[in-house]
Amino acid sequence: MPDTSSRANGERVLADLNALRTIGAYKTGVHKPTFSEPHKLSLDWLVRKLPDAGLSAAIDGIGNVFGTSAKSGPKLLAGSHLESQNYAGWLDGPLGVVYALEAARVLNADPSLKGAVEVAAWCDEEGHFGHFLGSRSYVGQVTEADIDAARDRTSGRTMRDALTDMGLAGRPRIAAEPGRHVGYLEAHIEQGDTLESGRLAIGVVTSIVGIWQYQINFVGEQNHAGTTRMAARKDAGLALAKFCVEIDARFPDTSGPRTVWTTGRIALDPGAPSIIPGAAEMLFQIRDDDPSVVPRLEELLRSMAAEVSANGPCTVTVEKLRTGAPAMMNAGIQDAIEAASKALAGGRSVRMPSGAGHDAQMLATVMPAGMLFVPSIGGVSHHWTENTADADIVTGAQVFVDACRRILGG
Amino acid sequence: MPDTSSRANGERVLADLNALRTIGAYKTGVHKPTFSEPHKLSLDWLVRKLPDAGLSAAIDGIGNVFGTSAKSGPKLLAGSHLESQNYAGWLDGPLGVVYALEAARVLNADPSLKGAVEVAAWCDEEGHFGHFLGSRSYVGQVTEADIDAARDRTSGRTMRDALTDMGLAGRPRIAAEPGRHVGYLEAHIEQGDTLESGRLAIGVVTSIVGIWQYQINFVGEQNHAGTTRMAARKDAGLALAKFCVEIDARFPDTSGPRTVWTTGRIALDPGAPSIIPGAAEMLFQIRDDDPSVVPRLEELLRSMAAEVSANGPCTVTVEKLRTGAPAMMNAGIQDAIEAASKALAGGRSVRMPSGAGHDAQMLATVMPAGMLFVPSIGGVSHHWTENTADADIVTGAQVFVDACRRILGG
Repeated sequence: MPDTSSRANGERVLADLNALRTIGAYKTGVHKPTFSEPHKLSLDWLVRKLPDAGLSAAIDGIGNVFGTSAKSGPKLLAGSHLESQNYAGWLDGPLGVVYALEAARVLNADPSLKGAVEVAAWCDEEGHFGHFLGSRSYVGQVTEADIDAARDRTSGRTMRDALTDMGLAGRPRIAAEPGRHVGYLEAHIEQGDTLESGRLAIGVVTSIVGIWQYQINFVGEQNHAGTTRMAARKDAGLALAKFCVEIDARFPDTSGPRTVWTTGRIALDPGAPSIIPGAAEMLFQIRDDDPSVVPRLEELLRSMAAEVSANGPCTVTVEKLRTGAPAMMNAGIQDAIEAASKALAGGRSVRMPSGAGHDAQMLATVMPAGMLFVPSIGGVSHHWTENTADADIVTGAQVFVDACRRILGG
Repeated sequence: MPDTSSRANGERVLADLNALRTIGAYKTGVHKPTFSEPHKLSLDWLVRKLPDAGLSAAIDGIGNVFGTSAKSGPKLLAGSHLESQNYAGWLDGPLGVVYALEAARVLNADPSLKGAVEVAAWCDEEGHFGHFLGSRSYVGQVTEADIDAARDRTSGRTMRDALTDMGLAGRPRIAAEPGRHVGYLEAHIEQGDTLESGRLAIGVVTSIVGIWQYQINFVGEQNHAGTTRMAARKDAGLALAKFCVEIDARFPDTSGPRTVWTTGRIALDPGAPSIIPGAAEMLFQIRDDDPSVVPRLEELLRSMAAEVSANGPCTVTVEKLRTGAPAMMNAGIQDAIEAASKALAGGRSVRMPSGAGHDAQMLATVMPAGMLFVPSIGGVSHHWTENTADADIVTGAQVFVDACRRILGG
């Protein structure tokens, strides 16, 4: 049983989250793109708070914030991210950072506990400049050349220019120190409605799904929309539409029970009202926590493309942009979260996979990692209306701090 | 029979077209967006040339160039445009302007001929800022508020700023003077391969197709691409793809023999790889020279949209952006072109509708109008590889000048 004298302070957690919400506020959410002024102010806010938890604060050369402890004994790393999607929710990221800060405040000051919680805020989890650049840098997967090439997807600003504007150019990047941490714990809103609809308080994450991403390219023949007969056309846009419908018809027979697939972006070239598109492309994503399913779907995708190309009039090619093996969450950490839920949330927890990607999947490549979800009202995510009831936020903080204590052996 | 002493000078026509081609050259074509520097230089070139044809030159407040004659007798207006699509062909526009200039040079100097050819270069036929703004201004269909609202589709620059940069701000716009002209004649490359494949020299245009344009809007529910089960999705992008495929399946039963339809642009909102599109839109165009066909197709489109909305999970609305009644070309002018073809092109002409829009359709609202096509190699259009054989350009010029003479009663 935890020492109830050193539980999470729910009011302090809510006050911190509301303080971060006022920075870059947008309606009831926030707009804090990576390396924007509100993002910078949020990092500065955290740097000012970390000493209260007995931690030395530093921002490294890719914008990761670290709070490190001089205390002896085992160290648990905990955190999340502070930037947001554009015009999105207030809790996606900050919740995990504030829980980590609270765990450090509560546990690092506890003389009965050996070891300490260290805090991280990973930069650009939301992918404005790349793909988990902060946590991937920490686990050694980002080269200087990757940073040279990175640009803000919206503004086109280079990451180098942004780092210079942030005053971070030339700073070393901090890398994972083998053996330093017993594990990594991250809290996040669920971004789905499993917990809410089951009247549950805590999701114990078992795995983070892998994300496979493809660009599917269609090539036809660009022509004048007024002077080219229907029979003579090679309309790349129509070929794309047919391919989307075909995926919708054929994927269910080959997919697994939790597979999801999405066409998130479509572009026709040249994209003018009076020109038959000569080329078209779509961004297509498959997610699954079962790594055996996706190769079957990828094979289906490629055979469908070959079929279309053979039958004409357009050709289709499938280009894989990203292969994402699912990340398994550590069993001991799952047990610790479940035990903490039993102690402090009446056992209202469920083990579940995460359909969304998180920094924890990167951390899982170098240390035992775990995640805890709190309910998200209506399952809303990546939208400024995203929200969680205050009571759920507080319960989540209590379970999180207690889980940290258990992982540290307290 | 025409007076053979005053025929078109083929070498002069080719030299003029090649002079215009060097201004804003791009590969073997040109890049002359409306109000770009190369466009301005091309207008200036024409202004310098018009006095050789006995015409006074002026540029009006919307960028139209006019060459007007003080000669007595009937006046025929002839012309086309000098700006180009982006990175497009050298003849689309300039051919008709140089033919008009040549007709004026040959015929206005002919003492045996009463009347004169006047020349116009209509601004922005290619629609960088709007929809036939120059010729529509001349026929009285453009308000000052329309100009206030017009912006370059590529750069976003306002038309007012562009007119100021061109030195045209505050100049009056020249409007059609009722009774001044016996008609309007325009030459253009075919933008299709009917003439080339039939080994013909001249297309006698019978009508210009109407263009109906629609924005079709799909509304679903934006959601996280990882955490939303397939069965729970309301994917607006998928609804759009299905709608395109449905159009492809159902339109042929209701369309006419020359109807064409095109989806030129598709946008998913928000258009991110990990977000299920909550909204989507497509730009959809129908063209026909038979005005009875399109209302049937529009009704089908609306009933399809109602069907989809009723069945869910997304709703579809059809918004009409533009109604384009087809423009009939004047029968007397068609006869004059055909007679000129018989005299100077061995009768290698065919009567045909124009699938593309042209300034002549605007002029047809205020005076008898006609068009003449010359062959286009491979039917290429709106691409820098667009071209016409020199011999066909020269034959076209001879037929054009002779047709002008005939229309003027010479």
